[in-house]
Amino acid sequence: MRKLFVIGIGAGDPDQVTMQAVKAMRRVDVFFVIGKGGDKQELVDVRATILAEHATQPHRVVEIPDPPRDRTVPARDADTAYRSVVGDWHEARAELLERAFAETDGVGGILVWGDPSLYDSTLRIVERVLDRERIHFDYEVIPGITSVQALAAAHRMVLHDIGEPLHITTGRRLRDEGLAPGHSTLVMLDADCSFTQLEGDDIYIWWGAYLGMPDEVVIEGPLRVVEHRITRRRAALREAKGWIMDIYRLSRRTP
Amino acid sequence: MRKLFVIGIGAGDPDQVTMQAVKAMRRVDVFFVIGKGGDKQELVDVRATILAEHATQPHRVVEIPDPPRDRTVPARDADTAYRSVVGDWHEARAELLERAFAETDGVGGILVWGDPSLYDSTLRIVERVLDRERIHFDYEVIPGITSVQALAAAHRMVLHDIGEPLHITTGRRLRDEGLAPGHSTLVMLDADCSFTQLEGDDIYIWWGAYLGMPDEVVIEGPLRVVEHRITRRRAALREAKGWIMDIYRLSRRTP
Ligand SMILES: C[S@@+](CC[C@H](N)C(=O)[O-])C[C@H]1O[C@@H](n2cnc3c(N)ncnc32)[C@H](O)[C@@H]1O
Ligand SMILES: C[S@@+](CC[C@H](N)C(=O)[O-])C[C@H]1O[C@@H](n2cnc3c(N)ncnc32)[C@H](O)[C@@H]1O
Repeated sequence: MRKLFVIGIGAGDPDQVTMQAVKAMRRVDVFFVIGKGGDKQELVDVRATILAEHATQPHRVVEIPDPPRDRTVPARDADTAYRSVVGDWHEARAELLERAFAETDGVGGILVWGDPSLYDSTLRIVERVLDRERIHFDYEVIPGITSVQALAAAHRMVLHDIGEPLHITTGRRLRDEGLAPGHSTLVMLDADCSFTQLEGDDIYIWWGAYLGMPDEVVIEGPLRVVEHRITRRRAALREAKGWIMDIYRLSRRTP
Repeated sequence: MRKLFVIGIGAGDPDQVTMQAVKAMRRVDVFFVIGKGGDKQELVDVRATILAEHATQPHRVVEIPDPPRDRTVPARDADTAYRSVVGDWHEARAELLERAFAETDGVGGILVWGDPSLYDSTLRIVERVLDRERIHFDYEVIPGITSVQALAAAHRMVLHDIGEPLHITTGRRLRDEGLAPGHSTLVMLDADCSFTQLEGDDIYIWWGAYLGMPDEVVIEGPLRVVEHRITRRRAALREAKGWIMDIYRLSRRTP
């Protein structure tokens, strides 16, 4: 039975890899890099640094370019339409991964940004490859540090009040659903500074961009006090570097 | 300025430590072990294995026994009463940590199970030590793999449906608030198999105990089909080993 490792590599700092990830990487003969084309050079560099440092055995790297995705159905559209577009796109990626894996020998590996369990499609694609039943393999998931924990570490904070829940959501959902009271909310995948659309004077924000990377920036404070500082800083950074990745926590009670 | 590292060590597998954690551990002169007395031998062993393998420099380990905690106010009691008991207990722990840190020299380190940002009091205690202003130091947080990610990896799953939120909560909250629809729910700190008290035939559960450890067990399936298997298995394991740590994900839609 062939083997595939899906390996979380942390969310920006190459030293966020675990010993378990290092040991798995050392067993890999072929690394598949899915959708590298769309990635920012710095993210590619993090992956390359990790491979150069830890994958010391002979290995190959096979790039799997992204299939085209139907962008005419906007993400904020009816959920089912959006999900079906995403589904088609996952299927097209699955076909490409299947072909690449079939054409190579040995143990396969896929490095995943952060942890594979959070807003990442790799595991859904791997499941689709198995469902197609044209190639057979066993796969193992190695957990990685998520950007959620990178944010918490940068702010040196616990993510929730004592004994209270933590809600992890997307910018789109925050816009659609508002900020629920009574728990701490973590927002990822927000290209639009959706926090500016929230109402209320009792919201606190902990924001971070490029976490774990040389350009890491964090800002925290009462939302109404710091929101403009964040949007200005975010726009300037994005302009200067050409891309940005940010994440934030919101809480209705001022700590 | 003295320095303290608060280091996440992962949730069971000693190989879950990150390179960043290893580098931090190598800089530590004194490790403080808070509340070791109450811990299970296997958890102590995971910490000891990690230290033995990675903290190769000369270092000391100082144990800080837990102060007594007022257990007469039950956790399910009025939140404010509960929080004040927890607050007193944190203050007592802070005093002990302050004294221990003051009595030693060099860089300090505290190893935290999983990640310090999730249901762990270390950072709250460290903040209290600083607030007391009797000793001064800088501290840094090194993120670790959480039991949430260990569960996801063991089940090889993404923790939420495409683009949907993830809710992380406690067994107590699940009993009090029920299972909210429309998102995936992760339950920690549940000594009472609170999932058995939920109603409905459309709930799916992914359960895991002793994740990353030699006795790791996972069970998944429709809640109504597997709940008795889980409660029986959990009771038997707990009986055999004297302790258990488990965590689970619930989702209202059958995948
Ligand atoms: C497609 S998701 C992938 C999440 C990843 N699997 C994880 O575990 O963090 C990408 C989102 O993660 C967040 N993110 C990832 N890395 C980040 C970093 N280094 N700094 C800030 N945000 C980051 C941002 O919210 C971004 O929109
Ligand atoms: C006090 S909390 C600490 C959580 C920790 N800071 C983390 O990041 O996972 C303890 C709870 O974490 C979960 N847990 C921690 N380690 C676990 C493991 N190895 N297997 C299953 N559950 C675990 C259980 O729900 C347990 O009740």
